[in-house]
Amino acid sequence: MCLQAPAEAAPGSAPRPHDHGISRRRFLLGAGAAALATALPAPALAAAVPRAAGRSLRDLTHVFREGFPVYGGDPPERRTLVTIPDDGFYQQEWTFAEHSATHMDAPGHFIPGGRLSPQITLPELFVNAVVIDISRRAARNPDAVVTVRDLRRFEERFGRIPRDAGVFMYSGWESRVHDPEAYRNAGPDGLFHFPGFSIEAVEWLLENRDITSIGVDTLSLDPGNSQTFAVHHTLLGADKYGLENLANLATIPGRGATAIVGLIPWEEGSGGPARVIARW
Amino acid sequence: MCLQAPAEAAPGSAPRPHDHGISRRRFLLGAGAAALATALPAPALAAAVPRAAGRSLRDLTHVFREGFPVYGGDPPERRTLVTIPDDGFYQQEWTFAEHSATHMDAPGHFIPGGRLSPQITLPELFVNAVVIDISRRAARNPDAVVTVRDLRRFEERFGRIPRDAGVFMYSGWESRVHDPEAYRNAGPDGLFHFPGFSIEAVEWLLENRDITSIGVDTLSLDPGNSQTFAVHHTLLGADKYGLENLANLATIPGRGATAIVGLIPWEEGSGGPARVIARW
Repeated sequence: MCLQAPAEAAPGSAPRPHDHGISRRRFLLGAGAAALATALPAPALAAAVPRAAGRSLRDLTHVFREGFPVYGGDPPERRTLVTIPDDGFYQQEWTFAEHSATHMDAPGHFIPGGRLSPQITLPELFVNAVVIDISRRAARNPDAVVTVRDLRRFEERFGRIPRDAGVFMYSGWESRVHDPEAYRNAGPDGLFHFPGFSIEAVEWLLENRDITSIGVDTLSLDPGNSQTFAVHHTLLGADKYGLENLANLATIPGRGATAIVGLIPWEEGSGGPARVIARW
Repeated sequence: MCLQAPAEAAPGSAPRPHDHGISRRRFLLGAGAAALATALPAPALAAAVPRAAGRSLRDLTHVFREGFPVYGGDPPERRTLVTIPDDGFYQQEWTFAEHSATHMDAPGHFIPGGRLSPQITLPELFVNAVVIDISRRAARNPDAVVTVRDLRRFEERFGRIPRDAGVFMYSGWESRVHDPEAYRNAGPDGLFHFPGFSIEAVEWLLENRDITSIGVDTLSLDPGNSQTFAVHHTLLGADKYGLENLANLATIPGRGATAIVGLIPWEEGSGGPARVIARW
């Protein structure tokens, strides 16, 4: 997340269409604006130029905050333990479930004996980011999913999905992240309604391409109305990992960025909070 | 952390002396061995080679675990929320103070109005790692500190400390990390005794070089016996950040690696747990 050349100008990657009804300006005025303003005040930006050494950086991580919407259970909580006036230094305490905010689903989240957070290897934390943009469809239909056709159309435009890919769905759903009810979007049927991956797309990726992970800008790899969690079972059963609640996917190239997945190595973790940064 | 060429063979960097009495073999048999074995099982390594694209990766992060020694207060706790047999999926809950395990001290940890975790910019999370090895001295004297002389001797050997540096102390103290009493090392004087930075070295770095952060393989940037926290006040007062409880610093080149600091952007955080990875 920085105010350098926009994604369209990324070297070595074709422009990604911004034809999804959520313009860059609307994005900047929406959920992303506060985070952008907070993370990169103007003075720091100037200093950033030589440090970034000509590379672009974007934050794919939401601020880890109290009340961040969760799929079930309690949202994250924090309390102040000590303060500078009273104690000479400041520190908070956090309590949260591992699947809070921007986080990883490790294989062991669903698979008995599957790998847990400390077993995810370092090379797996560096993926070739690919962004599948279904935001236009998702704006009309909250049950929209990434299909095999979406993957084929991506490849027609950007070329073959690279090795060691992290295949990320951009649905535009992050504009709802500050409203937990809208983000979960429960229907009269008692089910959630938000976009995710179709099982067919995940099976196609596992069979035909060499992926490391998939990721979404929603609460779940499966679409919200899934009652079987087929994508979770299949992806994690193949010893790959997932990323949920990704941010700012509209601001990186469709192909060409590396996503660095800074998972904290939570002991016996089922995944857990990670800092995800795109660099290209 | 991977079983590629050892640090000595890193291109573009002079060998770092392993003259500190803790040999690589002893390191591998010590605290680091379990993490090494866990993090990189052999099958993943084979797959890693193309992914790493000829680069070496090392994990500078301890497993975030229950009971990790803390400077004060309560160590991290976890509990199992749901299990695969009972609930279909597995997840834990964590409760911890921000300054637990491998973590950042943001300026706002000590400085009123200082920057908090979400305000640390993305370029600042990529630093040019420099390792100041005082392990030989620290093995004899737990109150050993990084001095200006150490910095000058480093530069005589490796060249000038680069811009945007993360200057990391390697004291060998991580061999004690599984024994909280030994790691804190309280003396009959009621003070802790473990290595840290001298205030003079930090002032020299701030005045004469362009650093982004300093880091230690102990519980505190200041030596354990500090009662003034002069290093914290000075470093954080200069709007730089610190890293504490770093791991595996003996396994990276003295100069030449980039350390990627995957700080979770904790809301109003005084710093907090981060995944720190070296790459060169």
